Amino acid sequence: MQPLFQRTPVLTGDNISLKRHEILDYFLVTFDRYQQLFDTLACDEAYYQKPITLRHPLIFYFGHTATFFINKLLLVRLIDERINPRFESMFAVGVDEMSWDDLNDSHYDWPSVAEVRAYRAQVREKISHVINTTPLTLPITWQHPWWAIIMGIEHERIHLETSSVLIRQQRLDYVRQHDAWPACRQYGAAPQNSLVDISAGSVHLGKEKADSIYGWDNEYGQHHAEVNAFQCSRYLVSNQQFLAFVEANGYSNANYWNEEGQSWQHFSQATAPTFWRKKDDSWHLRLMTEEIPMPWSWPVEVNYHEAKAFCAWQSQLTGQTVRLPTEDEWYRLYDVAGLTEINADERAPANSHLDYYASACPVNQFAQGELYDVRGNVWQWTETPIYPFTGFDVHAIYDDFTTPTFDERHNLLKGGSWISCGNESRRDSRYAFRRHFFQHAGFRYVVAETPTMIATSHYETDKLMAEYAEFHYGDDYFGVENFSQALARIAIQAVAHRPVRTALDLGCASGRATFELARHFQHVTGIDFSARFIAQGVQLAEQGLLRYTLTEEGELVSYKERKLVDLGLDSVRAKVAFFQGDACNLKAQFTGYDLILAANLIDRLYNPSKLLHNIHQRLTMGGILLLASPYTWLAEHTPRNDWVGGFKKDGESFTTLEGLQAMLSPHFRLVQTAQDVPFVIRETKRKFQHSLSEVTLWERIK
Amino acid sequence: MQPLFQRTPVLTGDNISLKRHEILDYFLVTFDRYQQLFDTLACDEAYYQKPITLRHPLIFYFGHTATFFINKLLLVRLIDERINPRFESMFAVGVDEMSWDDLNDSHYDWPSVAEVRAYRAQVREKISHVINTTPLTLPITWQHPWWAIIMGIEHERIHLETSSVLIRQQRLDYVRQHDAWPACRQYGAAPQNSLVDISAGSVHLGKEKADSIYGWDNEYGQHHAEVNAFQCSRYLVSNQQFLAFVEANGYSNANYWNEEGQSWQHFSQATAPTFWRKKDDSWHLRLMTEEIPMPWSWPVEVNYHEAKAFCAWQSQLTGQTVRLPTEDEWYRLYDVAGLTEINADERAPANSHLDYYASACPVNQFAQGELYDVRGNVWQWTETPIYPFTGFDVHAIYDDFTTPTFDERHNLLKGGSWISCGNESRRDSRYAFRRHFFQHAGFRYVVAETPTMIATSHYETDKLMAEYAEFHYGDDYFGVENFSQALARIAIQAVAHRPVRTALDLGCASGRATFELARHFQHVTGIDFSARFIAQGVQLAEQGLLRYTLTEEGELVSYKERKLVDLGLDSVRAKVAFFQGDACNLKAQFTGYDLILAANLIDRLYNPSKLLHNIHQRLTMGGILLLASPYTWLAEHTPRNDWVGGFKKDGESFTTLEGLQAMLSPHFRLVQTAQDVPFVIRETKRKFQHSLSEVTLWERIK
Repeated sequence: MQPLFQRTPVLTGDNISLKRHEILDYFLVTFDRYQQLFDTLACDEAYYQKPITLRHPLIFYFGHTATFFINKLLLVRLIDERINPRFESMFAVGVDEMSWDDLNDSHYDWPSVAEVRAYRAQVREKISHVINTTPLTLPITWQHPWWAIIMGIEHERIHLETSSVLIRQQRLDYVRQHDAWPACRQYGAAPQNSLVDISAGSVHLGKEKADSIYGWDNEYGQHHAEVNAFQCSRYLVSNQQFLAFVEANGYSNANYWNEEGQSWQHFSQATAPTFWRKKDDSWHLRLMTEEIPMPWSWPVEVNYHEAKAFCAWQSQLTGQTVRLPTEDEWYRLYDVAGLTEINADERAPANSHLDYYASACPVNQFAQGELYDVRGNVWQWTETPIYPFTGFDVHAIYDDFTTPTFDERHNLLKGGSWISCGNESRRDSRYAFRRHFFQHAGFRYVVAETPTMIATSHYETDKLMAEYAEFHYGDDYFGVENFSQALARIAIQAVAHRPVRTALDLGCASGRATFELARHFQHVTGIDFSARFIAQGVQLAEQGLLRYTLTEEGELVSYKERKLVDLGLDSVRAKVAFFQGDACNLKAQFTGYDLILAANLIDRLYNPSKLLHNIHQRLTMGGILLLASPYTWLAEHTPRNDWVGGFKKDGESFTTLEGLQAMLSPHFRLVQTAQDVPFVIRETKRKFQHSLSEVTLWERIK
Repeated sequence: MQPLFQRTPVLTGDNISLKRHEILDYFLVTFDRYQQLFDTLACDEAYYQKPITLRHPLIFYFGHTATFFINKLLLVRLIDERINPRFESMFAVGVDEMSWDDLNDSHYDWPSVAEVRAYRAQVREKISHVINTTPLTLPITWQHPWWAIIMGIEHERIHLETSSVLIRQQRLDYVRQHDAWPACRQYGAAPQNSLVDISAGSVHLGKEKADSIYGWDNEYGQHHAEVNAFQCSRYLVSNQQFLAFVEANGYSNANYWNEEGQSWQHFSQATAPTFWRKKDDSWHLRLMTEEIPMPWSWPVEVNYHEAKAFCAWQSQLTGQTVRLPTEDEWYRLYDVAGLTEINADERAPANSHLDYYASACPVNQFAQGELYDVRGNVWQWTETPIYPFTGFDVHAIYDDFTTPTFDERHNLLKGGSWISCGNESRRDSRYAFRRHFFQHAGFRYVVAETPTMIATSHYETDKLMAEYAEFHYGDDYFGVENFSQALARIAIQAVAHRPVRTALDLGCASGRATFELARHFQHVTGIDFSARFIAQGVQLAEQGLLRYTLTEEGELVSYKERKLVDLGLDSVRAKVAFFQGDACNLKAQFTGYDLILAANLIDRLYNPSKLLHNIHQRLTMGGILLLASPYTWLAEHTPRNDWVGGFKKDGESFTTLEGLQAMLSPHFRLVQTAQDVPFVIRETKRKFQHSLSEVTLWERIK
């Protein structure tokens, strides 16, 4: 057996020279082990023929991890020039699945394997030199320039695994067995799977920025959850256990597949797991460098859809709710199994970190408490799409490591596989893949009545929605006070001694004024025509936070997270309710308000007179109506004939204020003279709308 | 003969009671004389059958002048309530020619003549009461509330004339002769016309706000002109003289008509003047209330097109340049003829102010110096489209009196007719009509080599053009310094001790920075892709001023005039030159500059790299390139692949500044760190774009 594959280093300490040496070693063993992976390719053609249609050929991945070091070290100025600009453009992007036109082969003129190997040698030399010679201080933290070095190493370790999957997907005649990559030779029969009772408990996830071990952006922040009791399969589902599903024609029974799974199945025409091969009527399994008779005791390797279909089939058979665990449930298993981090200097108590095999092994080889393979062997799919913890932040030099996967289409898989190493093998690590992707990944199942909750991972990227989120909950610009706060303050001043039971924020958009009014009113209703706006208010009320991207320049964005608690609004969450509704045709239930606020609303209505002629019916006698508008009348929102003012009427200029007076005077008196309140909407880092909204206060007197 | 019809009053003095009485009289005689005009209508149907398809029936005009008093007095708060809101809506607008759909009869349910007469009596009472009882101070000036009263009276006097034209256009059996409206009975033969030499001289037009006589907005401001010597017809062109043109088939000979005149002639199918009637092979003339055998010695009455066609025919016959006079030339005639204002207490030395007839009279009845009828008899068309004098301003309660006619489609006519009275009969007055309109108007002609100049009357109303005019030459908002000034200052500082021969303002838009740079450079070239923008710079360089409307709210606008002299830029007019050009493909001549300024340009180009890769060729060695941009990259302006930055490049954020450095570094060095310079573009009274432009300075070093 080989020596232990070096673990990810602790980044604190006071022996600079030792740490420098440890990091150099970590770099070299990783860089060399990655390069050694490509020694399993039997010929140069293996580098250029794509294993998977929609992904680059292996030559790209061979160069990519080296280029990544150069690009990131340039960003932190640990180096100041490129080694090979052409290679470093070619190898920079394209890791993920691409669309057919990005991959048009004519766009690429790949260099030879020898050239890339020579390039890798240059990079190895360069990075070694940086590590050897650049002044080092400890600890190495998130902002430390050396963070980029660890990032590069951990990035290469991820590709060590993903490239091993691509090699496993490459034609068999293009690969060869290699002593450094020995598969397990223990096959045998699978044990009968059974359910283990897991008691309820709380899990604490997340990581402080001050943590002493390198982490990716998605690990930071905080997440706490109470996990109900559930039952869990003792073993990962084995090839043996999965065979029953295959033989029950599970792949072709639409009842077991959800819509997304079904369309994958139709596309792929799969009838069995992707690495299964039928030869002369008996099943074989494709490993990384060979095909072997089916090792029935090994974990089956499938994508999320196949795992989920198996659970649906099991649910139907047993009458129980069989499903995949959530991420929280997996952490409960981790705790219940009494796992701790893999030690630096002893072989892992799991088929992990390349400590044993270059393949899976029987599902009953590594007991962890009452369970087996909570960690290691193959990854385990969960029901949980990856989402950011509260406090999530992107890293400045790698803002698209996780953010593109916050789309509720990338599910977390946990536990790591036989080749997961470095950060990948840590408890904190969180990796997610598209649900149809294949990794060295299988699953275990749980029986639980608790429905799975999908946490919000969504970063609002729609331009208008994100701009309004920032407008309501974000920074101030040009020294202009938050508009919703200013209006709420004016409204509350105007209400003075009057009752403060209920208020209506009509045209509430993202809902900031709804929350602000709830500081003073017992209950506040927010109504908007747009369900997308309402969703922002609802999310804040339910989850207390909102995430969105802000355009900086062109396509470059920054990532924002805003929390009610930071705005001092957490305590009013229960006092607000949001509804979708039409201000020109309000449902009867919305009435009896002590205050109605209509901010930047009237000039966006299709028929403002319908609102203005009837709004008194929604207010208590003596109640206050606050109208705020820049009077930006546009025919695209309001037909010209329905404008309240801003035109010549009977030959004379007729302002909106005059129009409001005409429409409201039967039931209202103008409480004080109109005032302009400024507001700023950020469009890009350098472009803003800066407007003045005319605020008028009306007391219902009839 | 009737007593003299009261003249427009002097609005200064110290006898309040006397002035109040004079104004009351002026109101009453005007109001009653107008009402008396309608006594020439033979029956009630005459009020409802339209004389002219595209104009309201006479019932509208009967009510309109009364409603005008109410509307304007409400605006200045001399009264505080309406007399009849329905009438006052119905009679408020629709004086001018309308489109067929505005006039759809079903929109109008006109009241009876008796009802309108009763309404007029109420208004007469009300206005009399206001004049009798409202405190009065003298002088009555432009801002004085009583200005509205004089405005109402002068407005009614205008309609006295225009309604008399409509009555003249009404069916003959709908009108009747009336003792108060006696036509001239002197016919005779026309004198032979001849040319009178008019010496060169200067004319001074315009009026101070402090002038003691009421004036319409278009009279104020200043205009000075030197008029070259010319020859002028002694008489107005008579019916006799015009007959030759009719008999020469002048109406059907396209050579005599310009394009606009020809399309009027095609539409109208006119073959003779509109008030001419052929009966039993002999010509008759329609007057206001009768038809008479053609009075050959009277002036012919035609529109501008017919007058111009006559001149074209005369030019062809004589080989001389025969044309209509300009407004300036008409004022030269006024001075040469030794005219002065009509006296308050003696009959006018002209067929004017209803002092003689309710019709024209022979062209040789009123000698004025060597000429006849410089003033009076019928209006005289000029070649001059009405335009605002420098210093023009709209009156707050009547901002659309003249502004809609600043369209180069309304030509001035001068001198007044037999019915022109009050302000209309004053030297300062300036009235213009659409060129195809008929009034009691004819013409005299001049022979002159001086081409007619068309002054700019145009108020830029195009949203983008007007916003940029304000952005460059208008007010500051939010305390943000004028952007062009700020950039010019930064550029001039950066240039420091370097040569300051020539500068290029690339993408100059409205050209403010071009002028600002000319304070320091010997010559500055402004180039923009848009001819419309260039036109603003050219107009400023040539005429020193720019006029545009600003959107206030909805369709309401304000009128702005900006002058170079007020910006301290009048002295550099000769140092600038504007060209239309493509920054991505500059003509070879634009080179050798010591400074190039490109403000808010690069993110609006279809291919910025073409500019950036070649711009060094346009600069002297050591010259400075100033780039300013908010980097608002949009695919609609710049294809995504041609953005300079603002995207992920090879996986890493690539800013525009990095892109600029990459493109410019072969020839430039960045002189100092980038700085943000703010700018504000006003869209409405309450809506602004507030942006930051990143300014970088580059010195050409290779």
